[in-house]
Amino acid sequence: MALVTESSSLAMNRRDPKAVEAAVRALVARFGNQVVTSEAVRQQHGHTTTWLVNQPPDAVVYAASTGDVQGIVRICAEERVPVIPFGAGTSLEGHVNAPFGGVSIDFRDMNRVLAVHTEDLDCVVEPGVTRKQLNEHLRDQGLFFPLDPGADASLGGMAATRASGTNAVRYGTMKDNVLALKVVLANGEELTTSRRARKSSAGYDLTRLFIGSEGTLGVITEITLKLNGIPEAISSAVCPFPTVGAACKATIATIQSGIPVARIELLDELQIKASNAYSKLSLKEAPTLFLEFHGSSASVAEQAERFGEIAAEFGGGPSEWTAKAEDRSKLWQARHDAYWAATRLIPDTHALSTDVCVPISRLAECVVETQRDMDAMNLTGPIIGHVGDGNFHVLLLMRMDDRDELSRVERFLDRLAERALAMEGTCTGEHGIGQGKMKYLDAELGDPAVAAMRALKRALDPENIMNPGKIVAL
Amino acid sequence: MALVTESSSLAMNRRDPKAVEAAVRALVARFGNQVVTSEAVRQQHGHTTTWLVNQPPDAVVYAASTGDVQGIVRICAEERVPVIPFGAGTSLEGHVNAPFGGVSIDFRDMNRVLAVHTEDLDCVVEPGVTRKQLNEHLRDQGLFFPLDPGADASLGGMAATRASGTNAVRYGTMKDNVLALKVVLANGEELTTSRRARKSSAGYDLTRLFIGSEGTLGVITEITLKLNGIPEAISSAVCPFPTVGAACKATIATIQSGIPVARIELLDELQIKASNAYSKLSLKEAPTLFLEFHGSSASVAEQAERFGEIAAEFGGGPSEWTAKAEDRSKLWQARHDAYWAATRLIPDTHALSTDVCVPISRLAECVVETQRDMDAMNLTGPIIGHVGDGNFHVLLLMRMDDRDELSRVERFLDRLAERALAMEGTCTGEHGIGQGKMKYLDAELGDPAVAAMRALKRALDPENIMNPGKIVAL
Repeated sequence: MALVTESSSLAMNRRDPKAVEAAVRALVARFGNQVVTSEAVRQQHGHTTTWLVNQPPDAVVYAASTGDVQGIVRICAEERVPVIPFGAGTSLEGHVNAPFGGVSIDFRDMNRVLAVHTEDLDCVVEPGVTRKQLNEHLRDQGLFFPLDPGADASLGGMAATRASGTNAVRYGTMKDNVLALKVVLANGEELTTSRRARKSSAGYDLTRLFIGSEGTLGVITEITLKLNGIPEAISSAVCPFPTVGAACKATIATIQSGIPVARIELLDELQIKASNAYSKLSLKEAPTLFLEFHGSSASVAEQAERFGEIAAEFGGGPSEWTAKAEDRSKLWQARHDAYWAATRLIPDTHALSTDVCVPISRLAECVVETQRDMDAMNLTGPIIGHVGDGNFHVLLLMRMDDRDELSRVERFLDRLAERALAMEGTCTGEHGIGQGKMKYLDAELGDPAVAAMRALKRALDPENIMNPGKIVAL
Repeated sequence: MALVTESSSLAMNRRDPKAVEAAVRALVARFGNQVVTSEAVRQQHGHTTTWLVNQPPDAVVYAASTGDVQGIVRICAEERVPVIPFGAGTSLEGHVNAPFGGVSIDFRDMNRVLAVHTEDLDCVVEPGVTRKQLNEHLRDQGLFFPLDPGADASLGGMAATRASGTNAVRYGTMKDNVLALKVVLANGEELTTSRRARKSSAGYDLTRLFIGSEGTLGVITEITLKLNGIPEAISSAVCPFPTVGAACKATIATIQSGIPVARIELLDELQIKASNAYSKLSLKEAPTLFLEFHGSSASVAEQAERFGEIAAEFGGGPSEWTAKAEDRSKLWQARHDAYWAATRLIPDTHALSTDVCVPISRLAECVVETQRDMDAMNLTGPIIGHVGDGNFHVLLLMRMDDRDELSRVERFLDRLAERALAMEGTCTGEHGIGQGKMKYLDAELGDPAVAAMRALKRALDPENIMNPGKIVAL
């Protein structure tokens, strides 16, 4: 991979087997059987979810406390061995890979909800808590944490990758839902980014600096999250459209009209076909919007009615509505299973999930051109999108033994990123840069921004031990 | 001031009259009569709004373009002379002061709205555009920019200080409403922080790093802002309460119940008295909430009704409602004039406006203790608050020739910050650190955070020429 080659001199340094050995020995001496070096566990802590090469760490340590994390980082810093945080392993751009070797810190056992402040609508969690676990914990208190990237990701991982998902159109991304972080820095010190107040203008926004930094500036050890009251009423709908363009235009009009839609998801015709088969639905095979509305009963009914009017203007409908929790669950389960459904479209294929995000006015154009490109390149990839944000995913199906297809996929990904950038968009709306998208960052933001990112990285991690080889190469 | 003394060695360097002379000569050669060095204009570009000492710059340059800003910064960098960005001059913590001398860049003439993208609900503006000017510009298109800090601040200044104001409870602060920035760095290069897409996870969040950095990391030259559709219906209300505590508790219950209130402002009894006199109102002299609801007609009516029920539970009411634009304007004008009204309470006094923000569950306690503290210290200061965020202001009235009173005010401010911090709050919810609150930053965030801020500052501004002496001392 070009990625590794670029920094190969560094790689040589890092790979000094004596340093790694010394670090692992020190870790075992201190942490005993919290340290695992078996091949299987190391492999499982490398990247596993796409075609990026699996690059396992040299050892995995299951941290049980912030003190553990500080101890691990200090030992690694001493030997200049990389540190790679690991949550649920659901990231999509190689964030958990260890291209220079090093030590993976697994947060499986740091999974306590430390506090819930119901009056303040916030909570404090350890990074290994997953979003589903948190919502189970909160349910009895009438509260919920809205962000939903589909996978049952860890909240530490979601913060580190600036994740979002289906609810972001209403509730924002992780950058909008984290009040404060505790972070262990490269020197082993623990830093607090902010207080628990709802807002602050006290100095640089360290919270947002660490959110989306993918473990390259420090290791997140505690997260204070905003919560919401469970809405009085929730209703869902499915609405087919004659074309992808019509569905996108109805989305634009919905957002513009100020309807506070909680989810508005596009599934293209191919995805509907896949989901019908996999999730045993009987939806019309057409580009379709899945929606959800939150509010009081009256407000939800009004929102649904106004959306129905807008959809009709663009030839959409009829909408199927439901306020039943069971039906809603089935619908959103099908949406979450889109990835698995897609992989069944062609036997023996893997799916590569990629995402871009463009200003919503360019969304229809971007989706349609992307579909056309896949046709022209003889590739298959259903499209699903958080279209209220202008964000969409392509689930590219690949036969891993078909070299020609793989090279077409690679070309397609480059063209997709270029297309999004040409429309004032970003090469990644919510998956992050990781290893997979480093090559697009310069084209997206330009030299001064990437140079600034390098300078920030050097300022906080001068020895480049914090998840090196992600976002920017030093 | 302790502030200046601390960094006096630096001050000596900066104050090298030859360097300043050389820089001003080069600026005049390039920018001609865009450069002003008259005493009056320099004074006006130092801090003027509170008791902080006025520290005028050596020269003021009226920039007309990004190229101008780059030229000014390059000339100053050459001579290691400080650069201080100046918007509308409404900041409250000494942000525009020039403690080490230097050149103030005035954005008065960079006041163009460069683009409005109605479909994307965003716009691109130069930093000198004020929020009122922007809203005038947008009105015909049915759009508005919601943030409202009271003063007609420049949008560049609002971004630089992470401003918020009355609407933040619903629409967020500047960190939530800026999509992208262009920033001129200390080396004169222009950096773009992000694309115009609604969200992105492409690398470090440079947008949020510069928002709230108070000109210490770079000079903002272009801002892409989120916009909102003007709500179909707006209604306002005034609701008196028996005590400040009751008003705060009603606020907590309102937020918890998920009512999407657009503004919820507390004015204490003393402020109501002042506003009655100044703004010719006839409100009951009691702690009072001013509210505003945005939405469809039906939703606004429902929100108002639900708030009325909550208020009644806490002994509040009767509410006076109005949907008339004229009455609403009068109400909010009175809210905005609170500062001027307060200064009239005691003849020949100045008002010092300070703010803190605490988790909303602690708000009542914090406000009540603060009032009690003023009583005990024989100080007068009405309290007004963006209470939906747990944020409140004290408008301390001071006779500038009463040394004893001034020293009591100073002690009161320290105690107020300490109180907010003890309640997990922040020493500033929206005014920023500037010069005035540098002394609290360590207590608020701790050494590792302040050290990290210093490292970030050094990384992007190694010569410390960007608005030095604000946020962190180097």
